[in-house]
Parts: sequence; structure tokens; C-alpha cells
Amino acid sequence: MDVYQAVSTLSSIRNFINKKASDEIINKILEAGRLAPSAHNDQPWEFVLIKDKAKLKEMGSYCISGSFITQSDFAIVVLTDPGSKWQEIDTTRAAQNMILTAWSFEIGTCWVGRIEEGGLKNYLKIPKGKRILTVLPFGYFDKRLIAKNKFRKRASEVFHLNEYGYSLK
Amino acid sequence: MDVYQAVSTLSSIRNFINKKASDEIINKILEAGRLAPSAHNDQPWEFVLIKDKAKLKEMGSYCISGSFITQSDFAIVVLTDPGSKWQEIDTTRAAQNMILTAWSFEIGTCWVGRIEEGGLKNYLKIPKGKRILTVLPFGYFDKRLIAKNKFRKRASEVFHLNEYGYSLK
Repeated sequence: MDVYQAVSTLSSIRNFINKKASDEIINKILEAGRLAPSAHNDQPWEFVLIKDKAKLKEMGSYCISGSFITQSDFAIVVLTDPGSKWQEIDTTRAAQNMILTAWSFEIGTCWVGRIEEGGLKNYLKIPKGKRILTVLPFGYFDKRLIAKNKFRKRASEVFHLNEYGYSLK
Repeated sequence: MDVYQAVSTLSSIRNFINKKASDEIINKILEAGRLAPSAHNDQPWEFVLIKDKAKLKEMGSYCISGSFITQSDFAIVVLTDPGSKWQEIDTTRAAQNMILTAWSFEIGTCWVGRIEEGGLKNYLKIPKGKRILTVLPFGYFDKRLIAKNKFRKRASEVFHLNEYGYSLK
């Protein structure tokens, strides 16, 4: 799928159908994160791929804004290093690469931001020094779930030309 | 350009050739930001498109890690709202959409993070309450600049399976 088609159609998906992604596709999604650029090439990220169904179910109790993980095909726990100055920006860029790559294979996700972090780190044996930036539950979905109309601010509300306050058109 | 091709080839570009992007392409890059998803659909972003050559030159003095903006074709100043809880993550996702869309049209950029923010806000009449997340100087480039080999940590260093510390392979 073409990049502009992906970014302009991307929707948050919280309902999945019962279809498994191939290892080849999952590997491309992971690589999309690993290969991302970062400030000073710090690469402050690590990724825990969860394919175990029992674990995905159990993780529902730690994903406060993402209980739908229990029905996902797989999930990626995105870790970052709080000691790296640009970690939140760099790791978000890596995660967005993964989200868009998945979308290009018709696999959806929704950024889970509210997490019971201490509990989940303990459950997955994640070192205390790491931060969980997000959990991304992935899966194929019914395409009728893609929002027909995106509710977004109008171009005139968010774009300026050459100086703040000057309209683009 | 296919999404995976884009994310796997994306390189930071700091040298531009003298070729102008069309308004149609610039508009798609802007739309890639405007249409991004955000927590609670907050859309905490605004974008100042800089096409004025004199302004791009002047901005070199405010972009501490991005003096190459003086040779760019155009730039986008990415603003966010510090009052929105997930602003850094949401606005970074929007910016990454823009970077990848540009790349798919063979237009490069490099994330400029170190900025003399007070001075640049004053110069562009940006309200004090906004935060400049990044400045993205864009332009066509000599494709020989694309790194042949990306220096990245090995897959075994950043991927885990089902639990931290368990190898994927």
C-alpha cells in the first residue's frame, strides 16, 4: 500500500477477526521499528512480541485503555530507555513506522497509552529501568470498521503560511 | 511508494538539490499530519509551512541542530499544545506521517530537535502557549546520499518473544 494511502486511511482498530498474520508479515512490522532513525542513532527501543494467547488474555487486566488486547492476534510491547534524551520522540517514530506497516498489510491496531506499568513489567519480566511507551495489539479486522469520515479540524484551523496566523490558501 | 519500502529505506537528509516540490505534493505532506490519529482525537497540532526563501535563510540561526534549513526547498514548523496530555506522542506520530509521505515522493528531511525556541516563536509570531516540537526542512536530494547500510542494533538485541529476555528466533 502506498504511503499516502496508508496515512490518509489509517484508523484506530479495537475489534479483530479470527485470522492469523504470517510470520513474514509480523517480521516486517518488527523491522519497521528496528530500522527507524533516531537522534544520534541512539535507538532507545526494544520490542516484546506477544503471540502467546494466554498471555494476551492475561494482559487485558494491565492495559487500562486496551482491554481489546484479549482478542488480538498478537501484540507488541514497545519499550524505551528513559535515560536517552529523545526517547519518547524516537520510540514513537519507530512505533508509528510499525503501525503504518501493519496497516499496509490490512492489519489494524490502536495505541494503548494507559497501562498499569508496574504490573505489566513484572508480568513480562521487563527490567525496572525500562519504560513501556505503549502496547500495540494487532489483528486483521472487518474493513467496514474503517471510519468513512475522519473528524478532523479543518485545514484552515491547523495550517499557516510563512508566519503564524497567515492562511495557507 | 509502498509503506515497507519507505520505512526500511528512510534516511535523514541534510543536503538538498535545487528542485522545487509541487504544491500538490506539499499539500499531501501537510494532510498526512492533519489526518493523523490522536488520543481522544485531541489533534494537539498546528503546522507552519515556510516557503519564503528569505525566512528559510533567517531560520538557520534558530535551528541549532538544523542549519541546513537555509538550503531547503520548504520547511514545516510543527507545533503542539503543551496542555494536551499526550501531545508529544500524538504530534510525533503526525510528524512521522509527514516525513514518510515526503519520502514516498523522494523528498527528504531530518528531524531538527535543538531549536532556539523563544527566538523562533518570536520570529514567526507563534503564540507563547504553543510548543515547537520540531522543525522539518524538506527538499529533493541526490539519491546517492541514501545510506547503503543502516547501522542498527541486531534483531537479537531488540526483539523478545512473549517475555523479556527470550529470543525471537
